Amino acid sequence: MTRSELSSLIIEKKSYLCIGLDSDIQRIPQHLLSYDDPVFEFNKQIIDATQDLCIGYKPNIAFYESGGSAGWATLEKTLAYIPKEHFTIADAKRGDIGNTSKMYARAFFEQMDFDALTIAPYMGEDSVRPFLGFDGKWVILLALTSNPGSNDFQRTLQENEEPLYQKVIGKAKEWSSSEEMMFVVGATHAEDFRNIRKTAPDHFLLVPGVGQQGGDLATLSRLGMNDQVGLLVNSSRGIIYAGSGEDFAEKARRAALKLQQEMEILLTERFG
Amino acid sequence: MTRSELSSLIIEKKSYLCIGLDSDIQRIPQHLLSYDDPVFEFNKQIIDATQDLCIGYKPNIAFYESGGSAGWATLEKTLAYIPKEHFTIADAKRGDIGNTSKMYARAFFEQMDFDALTIAPYMGEDSVRPFLGFDGKWVILLALTSNPGSNDFQRTLQENEEPLYQKVIGKAKEWSSSEEMMFVVGATHAEDFRNIRKTAPDHFLLVPGVGQQGGDLATLSRLGMNDQVGLLVNSSRGIIYAGSGEDFAEKARRAALKLQQEMEILLTERFG
Repeated sequence: MTRSELSSLIIEKKSYLCIGLDSDIQRIPQHLLSYDDPVFEFNKQIIDATQDLCIGYKPNIAFYESGGSAGWATLEKTLAYIPKEHFTIADAKRGDIGNTSKMYARAFFEQMDFDALTIAPYMGEDSVRPFLGFDGKWVILLALTSNPGSNDFQRTLQENEEPLYQKVIGKAKEWSSSEEMMFVVGATHAEDFRNIRKTAPDHFLLVPGVGQQGGDLATLSRLGMNDQVGLLVNSSRGIIYAGSGEDFAEKARRAALKLQQEMEILLTERFG
Repeated sequence: MTRSELSSLIIEKKSYLCIGLDSDIQRIPQHLLSYDDPVFEFNKQIIDATQDLCIGYKPNIAFYESGGSAGWATLEKTLAYIPKEHFTIADAKRGDIGNTSKMYARAFFEQMDFDALTIAPYMGEDSVRPFLGFDGKWVILLALTSNPGSNDFQRTLQENEEPLYQKVIGKAKEWSSSEEMMFVVGATHAEDFRNIRKTAPDHFLLVPGVGQQGGDLATLSRLGMNDQVGLLVNSSRGIIYAGSGEDFAEKARRAALKLQQEMEILLTERFG
């Protein structure tokens, strides 16, 4: 999916919502445990209930890996079930020496057919480059994450007062363009969106941390939106665990709808 | 495995060699492709041929993930085949928000039973902490890697001339002890071992990049060894792809033996 296709999809669906499928066998509703593959059944019902409200799904790979080869099969089935027009993100936070990154690229872009993959920047250019150059595929590089630990290194000042996350964005812009790279920027740091938009005016930003982690949608949207929208806002637990009973999918839909409606207002405010 | 058990194993086997099972279906000998699970057969023969010469095996998870759920099953079979007295490292370079890191910990320490897991530090303390506190298990945190990209961020200077990788080591020492944490330090930076030993005199260091990536074993060993040895030196491609024909396992053994014999001399030099 190209950047302009992604923008069009957002405008058309009046939503820049991405739903995180952080589906934990220990947290899904009890009544699903009688299915052959309870996590897949959970995902299927969540997707059925929310697909008109969101433009993408983001399975966090950890939740599938924790089930071993069976969990990996669940991931493959889930990806196959997501309707083709949706943007799919493997939230894997991978990154290794070039030789190895090539294998991860093969895993997520060829063995499976994700549109995008999250990547950790710590190992630098040659760990990121093997993920670039896949037609219509995206690298989503961690810049400023939404967790407390983002204060440990990402915000560390450099000689010229530039924090590490800004250095990451600056360097990454040398490696690639906004046509195939996005940045992860946590919603819990709304005040930073202004700075980031100075460095990366054109890039899409993937924003986790809305809802469960406390980010404010209106503030970050007004600061972070650009002419092509430029935002994918993710909510995981706030949607998929909105309910815990037999009506979990309906409750997930209601939580997603609330965000989509707020997004519709914010999109209208900006794009008419 | 405790730190002193690991030291004893090294002294007993006269080796601090770890063999990286970066086993790529596209690179293993042709004649193995007729097996049901060619990568497992490759690993099995490599393990059979080298187990007396090394103290551990380190499968790089990318090479298994690239095969999807079948690849994951190969990893599980490989781990089960490695003799129990060996130290097993999942080279996964994971790291995510706390909630997610817990799932990765479950994947590698419970679903599978690896002794250690490599972790990327970019997301800070709460992304690392969920991997700590597992009895006899280890976190191996990326500090200074062996690839060219280590110059992009890891060596970036801070206000007080302290590079990021030293800051990572310093912070990580606040989170945990040398009884359950090691650091990855690339062999291609032998001159840095002296600095790192000032900051982390007691920690074990996992050293990749010997062989294929050009690191010098004698230099790094003399600079990096401590009273408990404190070094695990990994070689992957230099051993497992030493041959490409039907005698690949024998050639792998010869390559491993060469390193083990050099290690024996270096251990004798230090410990008598």
